[in-house]
Amino acid sequence: MKRKNNYIRIYELEREKINKILSGALRNRKPTSLYEPGSYILNSGGKRLRPLLVLLSAKAVGGKFNNAYNAAAAVEMLHNFTLVHDDIMDNADKRRGRLTLHKKYDHNTAILTGDSLLSIAYEYLLKDCNGNANEVIGAFTHGLIEVCEGQSLDTDFELRRNVSSSEYIDMIKKKTAAMAEMCCKIGALLGGGTSSQVKALGNYGLNLGIAFQIQDDLLDISADEKKFGKTIGGDLVEGKKTFLFLEALEKSDGEDRKKLLKVIERKGIRRNQVITYKLLYEKLGVQDAARKEIFNYTQKALRSINLLDDKNKKIFKWLADSLIHRTS
Amino acid sequence: MKRKNNYIRIYELEREKINKILSGALRNRKPTSLYEPGSYILNSGGKRLRPLLVLLSAKAVGGKFNNAYNAAAAVEMLHNFTLVHDDIMDNADKRRGRLTLHKKYDHNTAILTGDSLLSIAYEYLLKDCNGNANEVIGAFTHGLIEVCEGQSLDTDFELRRNVSSSEYIDMIKKKTAAMAEMCCKIGALLGGGTSSQVKALGNYGLNLGIAFQIQDDLLDISADEKKFGKTIGGDLVEGKKTFLFLEALEKSDGEDRKKLLKVIERKGIRRNQVITYKLLYEKLGVQDAARKEIFNYTQKALRSINLLDDKNKKIFKWLADSLIHRTS
Repeated sequence: MKRKNNYIRIYELEREKINKILSGALRNRKPTSLYEPGSYILNSGGKRLRPLLVLLSAKAVGGKFNNAYNAAAAVEMLHNFTLVHDDIMDNADKRRGRLTLHKKYDHNTAILTGDSLLSIAYEYLLKDCNGNANEVIGAFTHGLIEVCEGQSLDTDFELRRNVSSSEYIDMIKKKTAAMAEMCCKIGALLGGGTSSQVKALGNYGLNLGIAFQIQDDLLDISADEKKFGKTIGGDLVEGKKTFLFLEALEKSDGEDRKKLLKVIERKGIRRNQVITYKLLYEKLGVQDAARKEIFNYTQKALRSINLLDDKNKKIFKWLADSLIHRTS
Repeated sequence: MKRKNNYIRIYELEREKINKILSGALRNRKPTSLYEPGSYILNSGGKRLRPLLVLLSAKAVGGKFNNAYNAAAAVEMLHNFTLVHDDIMDNADKRRGRLTLHKKYDHNTAILTGDSLLSIAYEYLLKDCNGNANEVIGAFTHGLIEVCEGQSLDTDFELRRNVSSSEYIDMIKKKTAAMAEMCCKIGALLGGGTSSQVKALGNYGLNLGIAFQIQDDLLDISADEKKFGKTIGGDLVEGKKTFLFLEALEKSDGEDRKKLLKVIERKGIRRNQVITYKLLYEKLGVQDAARKEIFNYTQKALRSINLLDDKNKKIFKWLADSLIHRTS
């Protein structure tokens, strides 16, 4: 228990440092028409989990947090770049309780702000590269390519009726998990890790990322609304093909299947139908299937880092547990 | 004359090679929903001047074209990324005689295709880095940051009444010329140039880029329509604050000034008014002012590379002359 609190303290301390770097990154840059919107998104909070993965990975291989603060800020900038552009594509109104960037400003500003966040991300990443820029920038760039491909697949899925849950896993590997993989890899590279350490930590990130996304899908339907901070069932209302929805589709037949296909046809359901679908999910056992997948991918993540020493294994185990048991 | 033809032959040969790399770059990648639009823009032609700057700069410092083909393709991908996103922001319908990407597909596809072109640009650039990735990627990233800032300034200018022609020069330095500067710098870096060679070639690119953009503005009003391939005066019709327009505004008073301010107020003029404004430009001598600036920046570009040997100086002089005397 004491150790757990210690981990939380480390996390909160480092998150504060990352927030400081991020809030200073665009200050004093001009034109303000470009960098004020950039600061708006960078200062809008967030868990800063990706920077944490970078820092912990650097330390796990014998490096220091100090080797990787700029890289940690860079991955968060990259993450925010994807959020800004994704929010335009999804026509989303809110993000972290505030107006999305294109709603606060306009579409053109949001496109350009996203582009510029990505460019500054590379600038920051370079600051931490010492003789291994090729590998570090290569891993970062590969992560970026995967994110673009994942986003494109996700858009494809919206228009398709016949998406399988394994295709879904392949998509979130690219859209979500590849970035967590990349964070661990560049942290390990900057910390001076061996190639097997880099690979191991990369696999930890990848599998944790998959578990994280399925957990995200699960929370959307099964969370305690008070802790969740928003109404449950939003994914069903928007007609999103989540892991749970695709599992339900695969496990159902007859009237149940027809009911699920209606969600696709009508591109979502009404708010007052959420409870009916939640009960159907329970009948089909998809929440349990999701929990099982989350458990499996988390175990896989932890097995990947067997080569680390016990002290480091414990902190990565704590992180995985925290993500599985999160409520929002 | 014979030498000139020789230069053109080199240019056409290298352009063909670049086209081949570009047309193969996205082949066999998936999903096609992402890479087919990417291929659409990469295969839509273009002068490929930026890649040429990379290659010539590599050679000018004693390197080979072979040291820089991937980097040459990378700068063209970066250029195309900016075109795709700029065309969305400008709501442009046509580019190089074909539908713009967001018109051929849709807005979301265009945003994501742009992002992905930028990511593949970094991938290609990395292929040519050998131990100097930090400097090469640094120069490339700096160029990208400048382009974003320039685009933002350009948008700011649309909403302002009081833009001076020197502010305009500062804007095109970022929006257009910084990328030419970057091309020369990374070519020189990849060719193994000394820091003074890198700087010299960078200055050549920067000043040539400024001359190129003013020439672009000049052509829009004074070109021979048959060679130009489109109707002249498009910038006036769209109410763009070009170098010529801003010069005219600074040089005019009374009725002339009122007439020019109307272009701003009404956000452009009618096609049949172009000839009147062209005559006003002539009366105010702004075409000549533009020609003078083009000459000055070109001379500055050529003075920058005094440290090169005569053979290399000649090819850069030929390139500058070709750009000044281009008709489209």
